Amino acid sequence: MSSESTADGPLDDPAYRAGVVELLGLLCYGELSAVEQLNTDARDVEDLATKVAIQTMAAAEWEHFVKLRDRLVELGEDPYAVMESFRSTFGRFHERTRSSDWLEGLLKAYVGDGLAADFYREIAAFLDADTRQLILETMSQTGNSEFVVDRVREAIAADPKVAGRLALWSRRLMGEALSQAQRVVAERDALTALVVGGDDRPGTFDLATIGRMFARITEAHAERMSRLGLDA
Amino acid sequence: MSSESTADGPLDDPAYRAGVVELLGLLCYGELSAVEQLNTDARDVEDLATKVAIQTMAAAEWEHFVKLRDRLVELGEDPYAVMESFRSTFGRFHERTRSSDWLEGLLKAYVGDGLAADFYREIAAFLDADTRQLILETMSQTGNSEFVVDRVREAIAADPKVAGRLALWSRRLMGEALSQAQRVVAERDALTALVVGGDDRPGTFDLATIGRMFARITEAHAERMSRLGLDA
Repeated sequence: MSSESTADGPLDDPAYRAGVVELLGLLCYGELSAVEQLNTDARDVEDLATKVAIQTMAAAEWEHFVKLRDRLVELGEDPYAVMESFRSTFGRFHERTRSSDWLEGLLKAYVGDGLAADFYREIAAFLDADTRQLILETMSQTGNSEFVVDRVREAIAADPKVAGRLALWSRRLMGEALSQAQRVVAERDALTALVVGGDDRPGTFDLATIGRMFARITEAHAERMSRLGLDA
Repeated sequence: MSSESTADGPLDDPAYRAGVVELLGLLCYGELSAVEQLNTDARDVEDLATKVAIQTMAAAEWEHFVKLRDRLVELGEDPYAVMESFRSTFGRFHERTRSSDWLEGLLKAYVGDGLAADFYREIAAFLDADTRQLILETMSQTGNSEFVVDRVREAIAADPKVAGRLALWSRRLMGEALSQAQRVVAERDALTALVVGGDDRPGTFDLATIGRMFARITEAHAERMSRLGLDA
């Protein structure tokens, strides 16, 4: 509870604090559901080395989950109650983007990690130092993305038709992610206030600001896809 | 490769070395398949805190897996090739012991951890110091077993009929484990030589010694079950 005892710390502002708790809950549940998706993908893989490589990605996301969860506990929150409220968001996303093989699953994890990192960069400036540091650690590259890039490029080299299928897949992932993100913006006043720069008066959000943020995130996604050899 | 470069180290004995590689492969694949089973169980759990507790067990087994796998690499082995040969053993075991809910899954992981630890204690005296230390670390209690004991006891308190079902389940697990272990003894000369005390001449194994070992392991299992409140 060290942060709470700091006199006049940013977390003493109830609106800011509520936004941070929602942010941590969102990222935390996102990591947990990524772990679950990757483990499910790994289970269906026959080749042991590939299976283990996918589980290694899941283990990295798991460590991120643990850090975010422990921070919620430190803030005096019940992490499971906070996460619970994001379950339907991720549930809808995963339901509409079921990967048909582990390659699609890997790409999904890669796209999700990228979007989370972009989103974090958008709001980093509005966060207190402790929260910023924590999220920076959990968003940092784990070296697994190189594995995804290699596997996607290999798959395309082996069968060029794969590029079209994966490009279509990544567009679907991006479309669904944006659509769920817009719902979160509409439903989560505290989080949205944080995102648009600490404005704590619900109803006065600048929709143009949010629109520009989504545009920047979409652009960063397109750049990542082109590094994979895919049209965004 | 530090162990290989030690002049006259125990791993210079090809029969001993082959036994150690088989032992590591067996334990390593056992951990990997425990991770997979626990993750599958966790996926079907609705309550987030319970889901995460089961995944925490899986994460502990995963760390053990990584240590054992890295040791095989250090010994100059392809860990996936070594593990591959144990796949059918564990595949048969898991196929014949499909848990019908997460409680049975937890008990299965608990029984498996216990048997692995007992088996390790049986052969610890015949292992070189490095291998002994590594296995000691991966067999150490992770604090998760307390969670299993609590959940099983809670479930029995809530519905005493559960005790009968779980006792039956643990007998089935034990029966299948022994049956697969006996196949391993029959098929794996190098490993069996290690188990019966470093005898490297196939065909001269003392079956009575192995029988006594299985009896001791069964006894330790019965004691664990009674701590859970189950008849073995």
